[in-house]
Amino acid sequence: MTAARFDTAVYAARLSSAAAAAAEAGLDGLVITPGYDLRYLVGSRAQTFERLTALVIPASGAPTVVVPRLELASLKESALPDLGVTVCDWVDGEDPYALVASVSGGGAVAVTDAMPALHLLPLASVLGSVPVLATDVLRRLRMIKDPAEIAALREAGAAIDRVHARVPGFLVPGRTEAQVSADIAEAIVAEGHSSAAFIIVGSGPNGADPHHECSDRVLCAGDIVVVDIGGPVEPGYNSDCTRTYSIGEPDAVVAQQYSVLQRAQAAAVAAVRPGMTAEQIDLAAREVLAAEGLAEVFVHRTGHGIGLSVHEEPYIVAGNALPLEPGMAFSIEPGVYFAGRWGARIEDIVVVTEDGCVSMNNQPHDLVIIPSP
Amino acid sequence: MTAARFDTAVYAARLSSAAAAAAEAGLDGLVITPGYDLRYLVGSRAQTFERLTALVIPASGAPTVVVPRLELASLKESALPDLGVTVCDWVDGEDPYALVASVSGGGAVAVTDAMPALHLLPLASVLGSVPVLATDVLRRLRMIKDPAEIAALREAGAAIDRVHARVPGFLVPGRTEAQVSADIAEAIVAEGHSSAAFIIVGSGPNGADPHHECSDRVLCAGDIVVVDIGGPVEPGYNSDCTRTYSIGEPDAVVAQQYSVLQRAQAAAVAAVRPGMTAEQIDLAAREVLAAEGLAEVFVHRTGHGIGLSVHEEPYIVAGNALPLEPGMAFSIEPGVYFAGRWGARIEDIVVVTEDGCVSMNNQPHDLVIIPSP
Repeated sequence: MTAARFDTAVYAARLSSAAAAAAEAGLDGLVITPGYDLRYLVGSRAQTFERLTALVIPASGAPTVVVPRLELASLKESALPDLGVTVCDWVDGEDPYALVASVSGGGAVAVTDAMPALHLLPLASVLGSVPVLATDVLRRLRMIKDPAEIAALREAGAAIDRVHARVPGFLVPGRTEAQVSADIAEAIVAEGHSSAAFIIVGSGPNGADPHHECSDRVLCAGDIVVVDIGGPVEPGYNSDCTRTYSIGEPDAVVAQQYSVLQRAQAAAVAAVRPGMTAEQIDLAAREVLAAEGLAEVFVHRTGHGIGLSVHEEPYIVAGNALPLEPGMAFSIEPGVYFAGRWGARIEDIVVVTEDGCVSMNNQPHDLVIIPSP
Repeated sequence: MTAARFDTAVYAARLSSAAAAAAEAGLDGLVITPGYDLRYLVGSRAQTFERLTALVIPASGAPTVVVPRLELASLKESALPDLGVTVCDWVDGEDPYALVASVSGGGAVAVTDAMPALHLLPLASVLGSVPVLATDVLRRLRMIKDPAEIAALREAGAAIDRVHARVPGFLVPGRTEAQVSADIAEAIVAEGHSSAAFIIVGSGPNGADPHHECSDRVLCAGDIVVVDIGGPVEPGYNSDCTRTYSIGEPDAVVAQQYSVLQRAQAAAVAAVRPGMTAEQIDLAAREVLAAEGLAEVFVHRTGHGIGLSVHEEPYIVAGNALPLEPGMAFSIEPGVYFAGRWGARIEDIVVVTEDGCVSMNNQPHDLVIIPSP
């Protein structure tokens, strides 16, 4: 039952860096309830319940974990015991927020983005001040992946590539999207993921809804099918890859518009290097589509960061002037959507290197044409 | 893919009641992001993502749902279209918090307990004031179950009773807790649940940890085994029931201590009626155990409310002076825990009636003795 994890030394370094970042931001400390920040910092997969569990990292001094006595055993499923973090347990009837306040080193704290109002509002009340988001403090730490994290993302990418290689065999006319989705779910686990986190099979008009999941629609010859899939590989880093399939030869307009999308995706990937901003990458894809009159049918941002969470910073979106740095990992996934008719999307995960980027996904980017019987 | 749901009229009435409760509390409105409150109010099973989805219920005037354009289609999986709620969609690059502020009717709002800091802190900043918890406003609505909700809880209770009836067949010496857990997971679904929400199989010393889940420990003759299981039945109401099993005849001390626990659980159930407070019910169980010197080994509260969420208000715990009212549903689940040796717990879900309560669970409360080969 013990979760796969990195070395204790990795987590110890992350805790120190987090404390240093808090100090640099002029904060007294960080309060981290269950979620991806907690998992990143100490390898804990605890979940949020009505009883407060919180890791308190003062800007100076040793961290403390506040935990319901009932859930003490769950600490063993993290690096906390090896890290020698002080444990402060509490029982029903006691006030855990006062405990957090007493060990947080003061009133100016930042909280993890996952902390629910249920815990955040009573904590703010005890602290006498409104916390800020720890995202600003932890952003660089979480965004810049170390070599072990990149290796995990690469493994996840290779696993989802193997699934996409099998997808043409699942896309048989007469079967439903839901049946295809079930096959893909099995393949995602068979190829090395711990679970399937999401599966989009959008055929024909359903492909025009970027967030369609699957339905009982029956596949037929002539369908364009968007397949966007992924999941975590131990110790929890995610894959996320989209390819678009055509059952039978596409018509000339579809083929032409797809080729523009393919150029847009490649242009965005080619634009990635340190110093470029997130919004410049978004623009690189958007300009190619706009030049061919397809600006209006690309209805979402170009990408999102990925790691322990499928969606995290940096977001590749207009308005995000964040400069890219080596080690950042994110998706490049422009799409085109024609309501009521069809859609297409091409998505790879890339990691920024010293002079460009490297892709975690390596299946061809062409529209995958499946011979129609 | 459409979720089972109640009538639109039920949701319309809940929305009106929520607005009235907000007005009565002197609030300008409620802001409800995905979670059980949203599911209760409009039947939506949307999940929280980094893009804000929020139902805004002004104290007076019509509700509005603020939703990312990408996720517009997900509204169809709720009662929102039938309720005629105004839809206000937004795209990447726009500020959804300003949208919420503009339709919320003012700055004094309450937010759902599930709202993450990611959304709550930017919203507070735009509003210029710190929201309060909507729990206080929605508590009575959520706690007092209507006849359709009670019918759903009864159905869930009967389903988990059928699983417990099959448990003795799974508890075979030589098998591991994990193997038993897998059998129970299958039975939970086979008996009518949509999924297994939690499964605790705590054998021998593992039974002394109330939140133990399962392990590779091999069952053996003489083990006392705590089995605490449940899950949702459509449209989402949960079961939660614990029985304790003995592989072979228990020794005299175990049998005697179990009989005290059984009296404690029965005493708490017998104490339930309108006007009694939540903490009085907790005390009723605790007093029986204390009289026999077992106060120290009952290490948790007596119970928790249940409905769409497995744990919700009212909590049956010291310090909760809430008077019980007809329609409240909660667990009565005292336990005794002897570290390193064994534990036992007995749990039923009860619903408060006009003059007492009715149990959703009807398997016998005795220690279930499984003949040891």
